[in-house]
Amino acid sequence: MMEKKKIVVALGRKALGKTLPEQQQAVANTAVALADLVEEGHQLVITHSNGPQVGMIDAAIRDFSKANQEYTVAPLAICDAMSQGYIGYDLQNALRSELLSRGIVRPVCTIITQVQVDPYDDAFFEPTKAIGRPMSKEQADLELEKGNIVVETPEGFRKVVATPKPLDIVEIESINTLANAGHIVIACGGGGIPVMEQNHLLKGASAVIEKDIAAAKLAQMVDADLFMILTNVDKVCKNFETKEEEPIDVLTCKDAVKLSAENQFSEGTMLPKIQACVDFISSEKNKDKDKKAIITSLAKAKEALHGRTGTVITL
Amino acid sequence: MMEKKKIVVALGRKALGKTLPEQQQAVANTAVALADLVEEGHQLVITHSNGPQVGMIDAAIRDFSKANQEYTVAPLAICDAMSQGYIGYDLQNALRSELLSRGIVRPVCTIITQVQVDPYDDAFFEPTKAIGRPMSKEQADLELEKGNIVVETPEGFRKVVATPKPLDIVEIESINTLANAGHIVIACGGGGIPVMEQNHLLKGASAVIEKDIAAAKLAQMVDADLFMILTNVDKVCKNFETKEEEPIDVLTCKDAVKLSAENQFSEGTMLPKIQACVDFISSEKNKDKDKKAIITSLAKAKEALHGRTGTVITL
Repeated sequence: MMEKKKIVVALGRKALGKTLPEQQQAVANTAVALADLVEEGHQLVITHSNGPQVGMIDAAIRDFSKANQEYTVAPLAICDAMSQGYIGYDLQNALRSELLSRGIVRPVCTIITQVQVDPYDDAFFEPTKAIGRPMSKEQADLELEKGNIVVETPEGFRKVVATPKPLDIVEIESINTLANAGHIVIACGGGGIPVMEQNHLLKGASAVIEKDIAAAKLAQMVDADLFMILTNVDKVCKNFETKEEEPIDVLTCKDAVKLSAENQFSEGTMLPKIQACVDFISSEKNKDKDKKAIITSLAKAKEALHGRTGTVITL
Repeated sequence: MMEKKKIVVALGRKALGKTLPEQQQAVANTAVALADLVEEGHQLVITHSNGPQVGMIDAAIRDFSKANQEYTVAPLAICDAMSQGYIGYDLQNALRSELLSRGIVRPVCTIITQVQVDPYDDAFFEPTKAIGRPMSKEQADLELEKGNIVVETPEGFRKVVATPKPLDIVEIESINTLANAGHIVIACGGGGIPVMEQNHLLKGASAVIEKDIAAAKLAQMVDADLFMILTNVDKVCKNFETKEEEPIDVLTCKDAVKLSAENQFSEGTMLPKIQACVDFISSEKNKDKDKKAIITSLAKAKEALHGRTGTVITL
């Protein structure tokens, strides 16, 4: 009999799809993997990415405000809030349904979550995260005029924003109250709505918090026993996609740092996941506690929990 | 010293504005009225309308999906979920900030809320609620072809949807857990995301639940002591906007039914508010309990609570 664990699960793009029909199909599949963990008695706090969804919302409202003068564009923070409702609704519904079909009655809900960042975070001086649709040169020039930063990519010009570190989760007390009452909570979607404190007000930031890094913060702040990142690969690999590809079973924080420095993990995909696991394991709160993090695929979540696959990150 | 009450507050359009800049201004104002109630020691569960917001989201995604073939339109239920995130984020933020400026530290959060309706509700046979933008004759014909119902109004053709009654609030346990822990909860935005049970799955309905009627359900299900509807008038009036206009101080359920039958209250605005108050007061759960409902303006919420203005609805 396995001990009952509090698990923070971070879902990637594959778990949600890109368009609405894809999302509705994907969440049904994702719900099966999540329900497997609930069925074994574990308590879940779930977080997820929102890239394609927030991109669609941002672009739709941008175009709409151009065509309809009485409306304005929506700042990224507002689009994030919408995407949390959009994804949370489908995800909570799919999970509720999958649980009920197994005879499990458990409240599932979505909390609109703000994550505080530091306005002086170095990331603001060097924005790196490409967001939204590729643009023409003319559109790019307009963005530049507005003070935004644009880079040229193979797909065209794209806006880039900062990826500041998460400092605090504003709604953490509500998340903890629900989780401790046994509810399944979906929170911090898309890395959370990035906000900066200004006197008593929280101002939305034009930024994206790396979803995995925010998930690690969430895992610390709900005092999770285990942090699971569910992605496209069963295990993290050394020399990924080369002839010398070598799956890793156990990765210590020390080795993780070393391999990261050797550029073994690709920026924007595996690197932030490794960083997030190291953050969780070696945080001030956890560093004497022998906590674990697992990176594996959505389909292998349950197997990984039983130690049969996945990469375990330890101190 | 007033007794500490659990109050469900329903906010109308004026409390939120129409466009984003209006919303951000309006919620700051709304937060003052709400914080006045919190400061007096009362516990709030807040709900709100979403008409202009969901209309904008629906129209923006509709136009976007027309111009971008890889995207589809979003069903009304999905647009509702987005609007709950959109409004909840701004509202929770404004209230948190107003409370902090008064030295009150209290968690405020938004729960994405589904409300179950009956697929055999009579309302589905006679849709009456006009939603979205006015359309041209050509657009109207397209909607008719898709099986939607369209009516001609002075502003042009408009789609109409059903307004079924709320049967159950799916996330009620999460709302109650938070409210009972002293958190301020924003829930059931826009009357909730209307869903219909199909085996274990909840399917989004192309419908709108009257925000005030859903609020009354919420007030029953959180066992509120008081139900407040904050709207544009300080008091409900007989012969409204005529020479014989007569403000009402106290309205019994019996008189409310009688005056409603005399068409004293206009459909779509005051009538559902009166109906909602009667629902709350005379529900099976409350009918022996001497509960109260108040209809007043946002600005007079605190005064009405002290009995100095507003219309009180009683058994």
